[in-house]
Amino acid sequence: VPEPFDTVAIVGVGLLGGSIGLAVRERHLARRVIGVGRPNSEPKLRDAVVLGAIDEASTDVAAGVAAANLVIVCTPVDTVAEQVLHIAKSCQPSTLITDVGSTKASIVRAIEGQLPPHITFVGSHPLAGSEKTGVRHARADLLVNKKVVVTPTDSTPAAAVTSIERFWTSLGALVDRRTPEDHDEIVAVTSHLMHLVASALAGGTSPEQLPLTASGWASMTRIAGGDPAVWLPIFRENRANILKAAAQFATTWEVCRAALEAGDFDRLGQLLAEGRERYQQATHLHNTDEPPADALGS
Amino acid sequence: VPEPFDTVAIVGVGLLGGSIGLAVRERHLARRVIGVGRPNSEPKLRDAVVLGAIDEASTDVAAGVAAANLVIVCTPVDTVAEQVLHIAKSCQPSTLITDVGSTKASIVRAIEGQLPPHITFVGSHPLAGSEKTGVRHARADLLVNKKVVVTPTDSTPAAAVTSIERFWTSLGALVDRRTPEDHDEIVAVTSHLMHLVASALAGGTSPEQLPLTASGWASMTRIAGGDPAVWLPIFRENRANILKAAAQFATTWEVCRAALEAGDFDRLGQLLAEGRERYQQATHLHNTDEPPADALGS
Repeated sequence: VPEPFDTVAIVGVGLLGGSIGLAVRERHLARRVIGVGRPNSEPKLRDAVVLGAIDEASTDVAAGVAAANLVIVCTPVDTVAEQVLHIAKSCQPSTLITDVGSTKASIVRAIEGQLPPHITFVGSHPLAGSEKTGVRHARADLLVNKKVVVTPTDSTPAAAVTSIERFWTSLGALVDRRTPEDHDEIVAVTSHLMHLVASALAGGTSPEQLPLTASGWASMTRIAGGDPAVWLPIFRENRANILKAAAQFATTWEVCRAALEAGDFDRLGQLLAEGRERYQQATHLHNTDEPPADALGS
Repeated sequence: VPEPFDTVAIVGVGLLGGSIGLAVRERHLARRVIGVGRPNSEPKLRDAVVLGAIDEASTDVAAGVAAANLVIVCTPVDTVAEQVLHIAKSCQPSTLITDVGSTKASIVRAIEGQLPPHITFVGSHPLAGSEKTGVRHARADLLVNKKVVVTPTDSTPAAAVTSIERFWTSLGALVDRRTPEDHDEIVAVTSHLMHLVASALAGGTSPEQLPLTASGWASMTRIAGGDPAVWLPIFRENRANILKAAAQFATTWEVCRAALEAGDFDRLGQLLAEGRERYQQATHLHNTDEPPADALGS
């Protein structure tokens, strides 16, 4: 695969697809970026052109991806595998396909062994979501210093993995390679569980209590503002892992609640200190694993 | 009580006390601001002077509050009532005392009927905390457009309530008057429960999972970064209400978890939509109850 890519096609130009397009264009990583969408997405694709996220738009998937060397599928997780298999039929040989789905195992395993020869898929998941959706919120720096999990399997050609990882790195992201199954198990805790808890906290606050909500509440419920159309398929695809994460959370939660109920404030103080330490550990981790400035292309 | 106040004393010059001091000085709401702390807090008080949060410092509480017309007690909730009763002995007649504690009933009821004549206490709670602590994070605009709950009782003189409410408004805050008991019941849900859940989520994430945390996780655990020395007394003082809030949350949570377990994605979609709507309702509420620009003193 020649790099930088001549033509990049983005299928589904929303927040993520749009941000990738903006970054590719701003960093001159491809000669042109084609935005691909369904016929009813024409207005959004026009927006994407105006906003500079794509050079041109196509509502004909086959035509849109035909010239691409790299295709990035940015549609809801339950449609990715089907899209990839469909798209692959229209791709030229040696085209690389990736995605941005928040679940990986079901997508990667559904595609594995089903592609025409010379077309390669490597699963990706940029950890850069937001409760905001749509190309209007896209930002060229959305992926800068953000993790992108890349999930090859034993049968993924090494050169394709390198190519995809280099692509994400060239957008300023930090690549973390995992198996699809490991990815799904971990993000069930670090992302999907968080969404379900946020939703329960928001829904469990009565309208009369809302006037006394402040920054703490807003922080704890912000991600519940995300689009159910994006999230419901994630819960469907990663259900077993999320149920396991929920059980893990229920245990920790009950320990905290029981300490409060028992009036055991030594124990509760310990638990608060442990939570604080884990939070600070994460903050430290993310502040120190930034790549050197030159790797950011700046 | 003459307004603007001649002298304001702030007992405990941390994030909140320091921010109040900065705002009072920047908005010329008092001739001078005295910062009061324990003998071992001298370095912090010196910082506060350098940062412009206070005009002068005193580690002698009696001397520090003697000249004040308004005393704001910004110490942990389990020390406020005792501090107020102690301070009141050194205050000149007609001094107004308030606090910034996150719990109100135990403080207000412990003080009620115990003050010398002509000294009045009105409980306050600015909903403007942060996981950051200390005067170095203080900001003159911390309270701008933030709610301050003021909790008078049947025996609080109306003039004192007006005076305190006008003070908070002059800092750019939005006053919300409640009984101490109503306040405690509501913030148990909107604030204290959030803290306990954040702590359980942070503590329940294993170190090996931390590399795949991103903005959602950070949002859901940020407040767990708060100082246990501030939060433990809050859990102690508002324990019964927080346990009630925890039970309310457990119910909503179990509904969400059970829908996922049952694979009832129609129901889960409904729940996600409800959580999203509540979040958007809160966002709308806080964006539309801003006071007119002139009430902000700008």
